[in-house]
Amino acid sequence: MPKQARRPVVPIVVECVSPDVQAGRYSAKRLVGDRLEVGADIFKDGHDILAARVRYESPDGECRTVPMTYDQDRDRWFGSFALDGIGRWSFTVEAWTDRFATWRSGLEKKIAANVDVSLEFLEGAALIESTARRARDAAEKVALRAAALTLRDAGASLESRSTVATSAALQRSLDANYSPDDLTVFAYPLEVVVDRARAGFASWYELFPRSQSPVPGKHGTFADTEVQLPRLAKLGFDVVYFPPIHPIGRTARKGKNNTLTPAPQDVGSPWAIGNELGGHDAIDPALGTIADFDRLVAAAEKLGLEIALDYALQCSPDHPWVKEHPDWFHIRPDGSIQYAENPPKKYQDIFPIDFWCKDRENLWNACRDVLLYWVNHGVKTFRVDNPHTKPTAFWEWVIREVQREHPDVIFFAEAFTRPKKMKNLAKAGFTQSYTYFTWKNTGAELVELMTDLTGPAAEYMRGNLFTNTPDILHEYLQQGGREAFRVRLLLAATLLPLYGIYSGFELGENVAVKAGSEEYLNSEKYELRPRNFDAPGNLDEEIRLLNSARREHVALQRYTNLTFHQTDNPQILFFRKSGTSAAASGALTGTKQAETGGPARDGESSARDLLVAVNLDPKRAHHTTVEVPIAEMGIAPDEAYTVVDLLTGARYTWRGARNYVRLDPAQQPGHLLRVER
Amino acid sequence: MPKQARRPVVPIVVECVSPDVQAGRYSAKRLVGDRLEVGADIFKDGHDILAARVRYESPDGECRTVPMTYDQDRDRWFGSFALDGIGRWSFTVEAWTDRFATWRSGLEKKIAANVDVSLEFLEGAALIESTARRARDAAEKVALRAAALTLRDAGASLESRSTVATSAALQRSLDANYSPDDLTVFAYPLEVVVDRARAGFASWYELFPRSQSPVPGKHGTFADTEVQLPRLAKLGFDVVYFPPIHPIGRTARKGKNNTLTPAPQDVGSPWAIGNELGGHDAIDPALGTIADFDRLVAAAEKLGLEIALDYALQCSPDHPWVKEHPDWFHIRPDGSIQYAENPPKKYQDIFPIDFWCKDRENLWNACRDVLLYWVNHGVKTFRVDNPHTKPTAFWEWVIREVQREHPDVIFFAEAFTRPKKMKNLAKAGFTQSYTYFTWKNTGAELVELMTDLTGPAAEYMRGNLFTNTPDILHEYLQQGGREAFRVRLLLAATLLPLYGIYSGFELGENVAVKAGSEEYLNSEKYELRPRNFDAPGNLDEEIRLLNSARREHVALQRYTNLTFHQTDNPQILFFRKSGTSAAASGALTGTKQAETGGPARDGESSARDLLVAVNLDPKRAHHTTVEVPIAEMGIAPDEAYTVVDLLTGARYTWRGARNYVRLDPAQQPGHLLRVER
Repeated sequence: MPKQARRPVVPIVVECVSPDVQAGRYSAKRLVGDRLEVGADIFKDGHDILAARVRYESPDGECRTVPMTYDQDRDRWFGSFALDGIGRWSFTVEAWTDRFATWRSGLEKKIAANVDVSLEFLEGAALIESTARRARDAAEKVALRAAALTLRDAGASLESRSTVATSAALQRSLDANYSPDDLTVFAYPLEVVVDRARAGFASWYELFPRSQSPVPGKHGTFADTEVQLPRLAKLGFDVVYFPPIHPIGRTARKGKNNTLTPAPQDVGSPWAIGNELGGHDAIDPALGTIADFDRLVAAAEKLGLEIALDYALQCSPDHPWVKEHPDWFHIRPDGSIQYAENPPKKYQDIFPIDFWCKDRENLWNACRDVLLYWVNHGVKTFRVDNPHTKPTAFWEWVIREVQREHPDVIFFAEAFTRPKKMKNLAKAGFTQSYTYFTWKNTGAELVELMTDLTGPAAEYMRGNLFTNTPDILHEYLQQGGREAFRVRLLLAATLLPLYGIYSGFELGENVAVKAGSEEYLNSEKYELRPRNFDAPGNLDEEIRLLNSARREHVALQRYTNLTFHQTDNPQILFFRKSGTSAAASGALTGTKQAETGGPARDGESSARDLLVAVNLDPKRAHHTTVEVPIAEMGIAPDEAYTVVDLLTGARYTWRGARNYVRLDPAQQPGHLLRVER
Repeated sequence: MPKQARRPVVPIVVECVSPDVQAGRYSAKRLVGDRLEVGADIFKDGHDILAARVRYESPDGECRTVPMTYDQDRDRWFGSFALDGIGRWSFTVEAWTDRFATWRSGLEKKIAANVDVSLEFLEGAALIESTARRARDAAEKVALRAAALTLRDAGASLESRSTVATSAALQRSLDANYSPDDLTVFAYPLEVVVDRARAGFASWYELFPRSQSPVPGKHGTFADTEVQLPRLAKLGFDVVYFPPIHPIGRTARKGKNNTLTPAPQDVGSPWAIGNELGGHDAIDPALGTIADFDRLVAAAEKLGLEIALDYALQCSPDHPWVKEHPDWFHIRPDGSIQYAENPPKKYQDIFPIDFWCKDRENLWNACRDVLLYWVNHGVKTFRVDNPHTKPTAFWEWVIREVQREHPDVIFFAEAFTRPKKMKNLAKAGFTQSYTYFTWKNTGAELVELMTDLTGPAAEYMRGNLFTNTPDILHEYLQQGGREAFRVRLLLAATLLPLYGIYSGFELGENVAVKAGSEEYLNSEKYELRPRNFDAPGNLDEEIRLLNSARREHVALQRYTNLTFHQTDNPQILFFRKSGTSAAASGALTGTKQAETGGPARDGESSARDLLVAVNLDPKRAHHTTVEVPIAEMGIAPDEAYTVVDLLTGARYTWRGARNYVRLDPAQQPGHLLRVER
């Protein structure tokens, strides 16, 4: 049975340092430009005056310290510093007894009480002399010794001695040369991963490049996709995410609508990765060449867009690794390779990788090298397919490996699994995570989900609210018509700074393959799906307005500034996104864009509070009285103020806390209100 | 800058193990007879079936394991074991993939779906064979090999092979010999300190032996004190605590009422420890000899009482240590020893010890040896004076040192300091702690205090509710008359299983030395204070009834079974002490007395719920409707039930949740109600 480590015998207790995710096991997350506020409980016996500082190391290896101050109300010490670079920062807390301050404080009290302090002067002199011995600067050494001599001079007046003892110059000299005799360092170092701004604030759009040809029935190419980019830039998206672009397996290829009997021309699922033309570092020739891809990435960048790739660690039976490294897979007693299964279901087009095979080191390196290959082709964001079916230890290793050289790389976890496991993957290093948002459609469900996401979990996990995915067309969208799409879009774009839609959402595509299924009919996973994005009734204008509001308002770029407020009608959800900087302490705070071309503007209007009221019932008009959190917003109970709907331009005069709202989905399913005073 | 440890590359995640006080830094606390419920989050990728166990070591070094089971609702694993001995237990959690269960589960599903399983049988055979290789028992080895052979026999029927695969005998054999290939152990070992029952449930009485003489003006002795013990036993107390009994300093001795001009016959403060007759391991001759003390301890034991001593680590200027070890104190520039001070206040009768002096090791050993001396004279409980003015590291060390050989020793911290620091001392090892109870007299204050004490802090801290101390006579008692004493007694004796009174409380002594002070007039700290305990109006009967109810009802012996419930009148506090075993999970649960003569009885009536209603206003009658938590108590909304007041014997019929209560302090300040159905 392993034994607990021996307790260190130290004079000062330094503990409960924050932020800390599981006692130093994992790292907290922040965005570049944030200040990291470090807290600590620090105790010593008796009345000595303590001092403390944060010691931290930036990703480029520079070490600095910043003093901490004591907050009496919370009986806790705090210090903060600017996270001005991306990468892994480490920090810890140090505390010590400030012998000189302790001595001086006693001296001052005794002098005020007319107590004899001749011994105190001698004690102070000894303290100063011991500091003088350590002073490197000769002039300071001399000054310190002179001060000590004055204190030792029994002939000097009380006034002259106490003037020396309390002089600012002496204090400065002592501060500069003081070496604590009981410096106590917190038990373990802590880390914070600082990501670039887009890791915390971005609007995503998912599309299949192969569907982008203007000619129906023709396989789309990167060149066709390039043509679509200006539309997405105009709509205000930041990230364009492609499902896998690699050669697609031929063995057991899936036909249209997930059938097992494909026609010869069927394109198959892009998640069945690899054929004789290559694997995870190759491109399906029907899409183009690596040069075409590079051009697409460059074109996107010019438009302020970023291309995100899928990282799906699984192989079709035709993947080169199957021939080259059969030992990277589970080999069965007859020599065949185990295909994916969830008994009795079989997925014969997919071979799962055996991450704990004997050749683990080479396998893991190969998986990392796939990422580095695409990083070298300008891809800095990966949407990771089903990470919960691969070891957490692998993710922790590979994300660290990649980010060591490329701290700007973003990993977005598609782990639709138990919430604890999702959080575990976030702790292990994923930059962003899908959430259960698609399945939360009532007010109570949304409040519960968002409270969880923006609570303590925000220390290490960033939810990205997708309205739909190629796998998830929720019944709410199937049944609710265009109005339902508007509701979900408004929620996704305002609840959190990260959201996304999958192509076709803006057209209200809502036909499932069958009743009770969340799969699309004629799913793009198995066939080309060209679209007319100019079709009447599309949501382009609403998307453009929302993405533009997101870029203009700091309140929509922050994560933990969300609070829900009372309404009289459960069908109407009402929440505030705070625009003030003082966000919930200790959790992810706002972004101050450091990237060139970043979207945030620190203008007058950008820091305003926003209020959002959404009618969750896509079928009927509802009205309610909402309860505005005027106390938190500094509004007087009878004060009149203007709220402006950023979606319609309509202006309303509200007064105090309780105000009337009526929302007819046929007209406007919700208000996105800027508070003006 | 220290770096974070490299993450272990393990296939299974085992984390958030509970109970855990600050990531293994401190130990949780339990009582002997409790079961320790251990929880853990355990994850692996994919669908493999996991298994987990708690591995634990008892204080006598025996190692055992107990299986854990998965709770789907909480997505967490749990396992528990009986803490059947006092001392330090250690435990950790181990998890592994149950390859055979995983294989068998797939097999069963495939057979049910009529899928060909011939390869599965070969895979199962390989699993069984690898286990057979490890089997020590020859017969089991043969049986396992035979099972594998059957599975490998392509000629055998599906039925016969699957019968073998799913047989209970095979499962038993595999369980007994299985050696996991991916055993993953939680990152650090955890500890739980298991105390004897009296550490968690006891009624305390504090008295000064020197005041126990029947002759007014005569110094009391241990023999006089012995005479008082039967009274205390009859009142139902368990622990009798004495302020220091050592020789008292003569230099700067304090006179009556803390004056600096003592008369020659003044006895001084017993906390000014030590004179030429001895120090912490000596006895003031006016009290008697060590033989007298031993007799007193034995007499107490016969009555079921335990003597607790004060452990006050400070010295009078006349203490032998001052001459023998002046280097254990702070020596000033003129060679004098620094007396205690809180500038500008001076405490010239006390020399504080320098716990970090150069001779630290000998000093700490001497401090420990004082404890061991008294332990060898039968003292197993120490009330520790002002522990917050000594280093936490010292307490952590000395408590561990003493409890290593004497795990039955109890340390009770008198740390009236900031709540976080109080908790820090509890974490460091103190068995019990004073609380802010004396200063919490309104309902809101009491609810806040008790919610804090019985919340997460109960994992490591046990509050002991003293109604008064020689230092604290609260204004509420000064102003409220006998009724106030009854209110505070009822609260202290029922809110928590640990409570105490300081002598004179039962007589309603309530005169302060001056207005605005919490010091007693003619404080027993500085003079003899004989008392007539038979004086009319004493609270003996109430004390006896309460202590008897405490011994009869498990509900009053548990710590975390306290919940407060609604009343319409803020002057009436209403709470439930649950009698059922299912106390709040994860925190201190009830005591099953293991000591001989222990008070708990597991009879029919003892497990009943108790309800307590207290009128906090000692001056006026109040009435209210209380809200009984009938749902938690299994009472139907319109059900009638009887409540019996254990203090008066009165019976009331209540119905459903809302019931009327009227409390007149002149008659009865509160109800202590047993619920009968």
